[in-house]
Amino acid sequence: MMGKVYIVGAGPGDVELLTLKAVRIIKEADVILYDRLVSEDILQLARPDCEIIYVGKEEGKHTPQDSINRMLVELSKVYRRVVRLKGGDPFVFGRGAEEALYLAQKGVEFEVVPGVSSVTGVPTYVGIPLTMRGVSSSFGVVTGHEGEGCYGVRWELSKYVDTLVVVMGVGKRQEIGRKLLELGRDAEEPVAFVERGCTSRQRVVVTSLGRLASDPPPVEPPALLVVGKVVDLINTLGKEVERWRQNPTVVIW
Amino acid sequence: MMGKVYIVGAGPGDVELLTLKAVRIIKEADVILYDRLVSEDILQLARPDCEIIYVGKEEGKHTPQDSINRMLVELSKVYRRVVRLKGGDPFVFGRGAEEALYLAQKGVEFEVVPGVSSVTGVPTYVGIPLTMRGVSSSFGVVTGHEGEGCYGVRWELSKYVDTLVVVMGVGKRQEIGRKLLELGRDAEEPVAFVERGCTSRQRVVVTSLGRLASDPPPVEPPALLVVGKVVDLINTLGKEVERWRQNPTVVIW
Repeated sequence: MMGKVYIVGAGPGDVELLTLKAVRIIKEADVILYDRLVSEDILQLARPDCEIIYVGKEEGKHTPQDSINRMLVELSKVYRRVVRLKGGDPFVFGRGAEEALYLAQKGVEFEVVPGVSSVTGVPTYVGIPLTMRGVSSSFGVVTGHEGEGCYGVRWELSKYVDTLVVVMGVGKRQEIGRKLLELGRDAEEPVAFVERGCTSRQRVVVTSLGRLASDPPPVEPPALLVVGKVVDLINTLGKEVERWRQNPTVVIW
Repeated sequence: MMGKVYIVGAGPGDVELLTLKAVRIIKEADVILYDRLVSEDILQLARPDCEIIYVGKEEGKHTPQDSINRMLVELSKVYRRVVRLKGGDPFVFGRGAEEALYLAQKGVEFEVVPGVSSVTGVPTYVGIPLTMRGVSSSFGVVTGHEGEGCYGVRWELSKYVDTLVVVMGVGKRQEIGRKLLELGRDAEEPVAFVERGCTSRQRVVVTSLGRLASDPPPVEPPALLVVGKVVDLINTLGKEVERWRQNPTVVIW
């Protein structure tokens, strides 16, 4: 038997931000391999007899990428519908493309299902538009985590985009702040970290680039970093901003 | 009575790429204002008694942004649930942020619902990953349509991103090709236009940057332009690529 592998974007966290297609495929799954950023609510959509396997990357529980690739192939020989569930969109960071390429090379049938990427969905959800006429007509997205096999981030891009989004930038946040100042971005420019975006434990920390470089706020990964004038719009467009103000889920640093 | 306005992302086209939240809100809507890129299938989810108003921007039928803003406010006085349905994600191009800002200023209650952005969803759907370890760890997104009120595109960003995505770039495609070559991107670098992505009339045109600059392919808007080595992966990751090869929906130019 040759099964099919579905590489499915689970969106940025909120179960209601799953696509109809993702829900349909999860409900039909015989086995699901899921990452750390996929919530419990989402897994509960699966059939009771669906096998559910955690392959997230977290200290002490790290499943190497090679093993995940091989597991997908092996499972496709045993199950008809294998679902690889990934946070956000499978082809925007998160190594979905590597998994798909491996399957293609092994001749395993697969399908990739786009999801709401955290890169766009998390800022929208909290009231930060990545673009806005007259304020931002471009954005750049980079990873702050420069692992092996990745090119170094060419931070000079920050000179040419209105809004900059950094994924996995928490660990090097002060360094990133300094770099962006050095390259000429304004110290007064607002910056937001959105921790655990689109989940019930979401928390937003708003500061300035100057503060980020000199006295970075405490932030815990996973968090998305957004730099640019659009961040100020959270005060008006953050739908729950008033509630947040009375609540430590928005922190002004 | 004061109603609430929901500014909802309808995703890139395929009705199955709607989020659960978008579907729920569409089904509850008393009135829907929709754009050109929102498909008929999606509108059919509305209640039979839901009022449906077209406010898309197309020659001869153009509804000015000011009128849309004012309509949303007026409708919120008459209806309980007003839905403003926009292609992709409301806060990634498409002027959703302006609408939200206007509502905020007029004191109308609103909520913004993220959708699958065309910027990420369309490439994923056709088998082009915007990022891939060792190939692309960054991407930039710009608009090729420089209207009034927009800053000029700072194309120099193309020197610092692995993958470049251009929305609304069809009209100036040859000019964009020349510009990117001038700035030092490789003439051999692959380029894809995805016309009407994620719809039944989707069509992909693959060429090189050199060809784009010297002899641009015929392409019709709306189309997303993707520039970068990741475009080559469509040959392996485009799930229906074999079918496409025998079919004019993928054109090698």
